[in-house]
Amino acid sequence: MSASAYRAAGVDLAAADETLGRVKAAVRATYTEDVLAGLGAFGGLFGAGALKGIDAPDLVASTDGVGTKTSVAAALGRYGTVGEDLVNHCVNDILVQGAGPLFFLDYVASGRLEPAVTADLIGGVARGCRAHGVPLLGGETAELPGVYVENEFDLAGTIIGAVDRANVITGERVRGGDVVLGFPSGGLQTNGFSLARRVLTDLSEPLGAGTVGDALLRPHPSFLGAMTPVLEAGLVRGMAHVTGGGLPGNLPRVLPEGLGAEVAPTWDVPEIFRLIQERGGVAQDEMFRVFNMGVGFVFVVSAEDEAGARELAPEAFAVGRIVKGEGVRLRSVFSGRP
Amino acid sequence: MSASAYRAAGVDLAAADETLGRVKAAVRATYTEDVLAGLGAFGGLFGAGALKGIDAPDLVASTDGVGTKTSVAAALGRYGTVGEDLVNHCVNDILVQGAGPLFFLDYVASGRLEPAVTADLIGGVARGCRAHGVPLLGGETAELPGVYVENEFDLAGTIIGAVDRANVITGERVRGGDVVLGFPSGGLQTNGFSLARRVLTDLSEPLGAGTVGDALLRPHPSFLGAMTPVLEAGLVRGMAHVTGGGLPGNLPRVLPEGLGAEVAPTWDVPEIFRLIQERGGVAQDEMFRVFNMGVGFVFVVSAEDEAGARELAPEAFAVGRIVKGEGVRLRSVFSGRP
Repeated sequence: MSASAYRAAGVDLAAADETLGRVKAAVRATYTEDVLAGLGAFGGLFGAGALKGIDAPDLVASTDGVGTKTSVAAALGRYGTVGEDLVNHCVNDILVQGAGPLFFLDYVASGRLEPAVTADLIGGVARGCRAHGVPLLGGETAELPGVYVENEFDLAGTIIGAVDRANVITGERVRGGDVVLGFPSGGLQTNGFSLARRVLTDLSEPLGAGTVGDALLRPHPSFLGAMTPVLEAGLVRGMAHVTGGGLPGNLPRVLPEGLGAEVAPTWDVPEIFRLIQERGGVAQDEMFRVFNMGVGFVFVVSAEDEAGARELAPEAFAVGRIVKGEGVRLRSVFSGRP
Repeated sequence: MSASAYRAAGVDLAAADETLGRVKAAVRATYTEDVLAGLGAFGGLFGAGALKGIDAPDLVASTDGVGTKTSVAAALGRYGTVGEDLVNHCVNDILVQGAGPLFFLDYVASGRLEPAVTADLIGGVARGCRAHGVPLLGGETAELPGVYVENEFDLAGTIIGAVDRANVITGERVRGGDVVLGFPSGGLQTNGFSLARRVLTDLSEPLGAGTVGDALLRPHPSFLGAMTPVLEAGLVRGMAHVTGGGLPGNLPRVLPEGLGAEVAPTWDVPEIFRLIQERGGVAQDEMFRVFNMGVGFVFVVSAEDEAGARELAPEAFAVGRIVKGEGVRLRSVFSGRP
C-alpha cells in the first residue's frame, strides 16, 4: 500500500480517528433524552420535547471563543479547563437575555492534530456541558496545516438556548436610580489575554497561593446558577456579561437611550489585574476597558428590590447605580484595597 | 492620552469597530421578521414564530469550517466566496436529516484583524445566508496574535435548522437494491485542500477556461433547492453530504447495519481531481477517500422511485446501488472520461 499523500500533506486521518475514540465517552456522557442523533451524524438532532414546557419559546444563540487564553493553556500544557471556560462564557452570554441553554457545539482547530490535547480540550467542553445538564450536540475538530502557529490552537463554540417570550430580558425596564449588582469574576475570564501575555512573560512567577499561570487559567465562572433565583423572582431589569470592552463596553449595551451608570469600584480587584497594570504601566481607564477588573457579570434591579435580590444572590456585591447620561462613569479609581 | 497597551499587544479595538461598521449593512440585510435581537446583543434572539408551522419541531445543528480553502483564498487575496462555501456546507449537513435552516452564526479568526478582509469574509457568509432566506443571527470575530500564521485566517460557522419529527430522514428505510443518485460538486467543495495545496503549488497555472486557483475556489454548492422537490414527494430514503472522507467515508454513515454500496464511477470527474491525482501520484483509493471526486451530495431512493426522483431532480446522476455488505465498493476505477 502506498504511503498516504494526505498524511504527507499534514492531515492525519488516523489521528482524527484516535481523537474521536478518546472523546466519545465524554461526549456521550453529556447526552440527555433530547439527543436523537449525535456523534457520527451529519447534524446533531435535538428533540422538540425540550421546548414543550415553554409557551412561546424564542431561541437565543451565541458563538464565542476563549481568545488567547488558548496560548496560556498551550504554554503550560494544561488543556483541561479552557473548554469549561468556553461553555461558561457562552452560557453567560445568552443568560443576559434570560435564556437557559439547550445544547452546545464546539470547534477545535490547530495546525497539527494531537489526539491527547484535543481530547483534553473537548473533555473540558463536555465537563462544562454536563455541569449545565446540556448535551454537547455536535462540533468540528479541524487540522489546518499552515494556518496555525506550531503548538497553538483555537477553541470556539456555539450555544443554543431558549426563553419564553414573556421572560425575555432586554434592559428596556431599567430606570434611573436602579441599582447595579455584580458577581465576582475571580480572574480574566476569557478576555484581555493578549495584553496579559505581553506584560506577564513568566507564567511560573509566584502570585498569591499559586503562580501567574494559575491566575490566568482560573476558570471563567458560569453565572446561571447564581442568577436563576433572582430571575425566577422577577426582580431583574437588565443584565450584562462583562466580556471584551469591560464594564464600560458591556453594561451600556443593555441600557435604554439616555441612561448610563455610575460605578464605584469598591469590590476586591483580583491581584492579577493589579500586577498587569503595574508591570505594563497600563492606564486605569484602559484596564477597565480591556479587563473585567473582578466583576464577571452584572444585573440591574430597582432600589426597592435591592435587598430582596441580595438575599437571593448572596455573592452579589454593589457595583453602581443607573444615572441619566450615557456610558459608564467611574466614580473613583482604585487606590489599593478598600 | 497614553498609547494603548492593548493595541501594542496586538489587539486593535479600532479595527474591530471599523470591521463592525463595514459588515453591519450586509448582516442586517439577512434579517427576517424572526430576528428579535441581532448585532450588538449578547445573544441573537430568534422568534418562536418560525417554528409555529411545524407540528413537532426537532432542532438540527452543525458546526463546520472550510478547511484550508482559507489558505487558497488568502494566497489569491479573494475572500468573497469562502463565506458562501461555509453556509452551503452547513446547509447540506443538516439537509441530510431532512432539516431546513433557521439561522446561522459565524466565527472568523486571524492573528491580525484586517477590516477589509474580514468584511469580505462576513459579506460572503451573509450572501450565503440571504440565498437561503435565513438570518446571520450572530457570530464572533476574533483577533488572536501569535495563534495564526501571518496572513492566514480561519472561518467556521454553525447552522441551526428544524425538521418536523415525522419528516426526519435517518437512512433506516434504505434497502438492498435501492438506487444511489448524486449531484455534481463542481470541485473540491471544502475538503481535501491541504493535499491539493501541497500538490498544486502554482495557483495561476491555466486549467480549463480559468486557473488552478479558480478551480480550487469554486463554490461549494448548496443542494437544498435541488433536493426539496424530491423530499416533498417523500421519495428519499437516505442522504449523505460528501465531505471529508469522500463517498466511502460518508455514504455508509447513513446506511443500516449490513448494507453497503456498489459505486460505478461513470460521472464526469472535474479536471482538478485528475490534475491532483497525476501531479501528486495519489492512489485512486486515496483520491476517493480525501475528495468528493465530483459527487457533492448523494441520496437513496427505491428502484421503482428512481425515474420519479430523476424527474424531480434533473441534475441528479447515477452513482451506484445499495448492496448487502458494508462500506463502499468502487466497481471500476476511472480510465479517462467515460
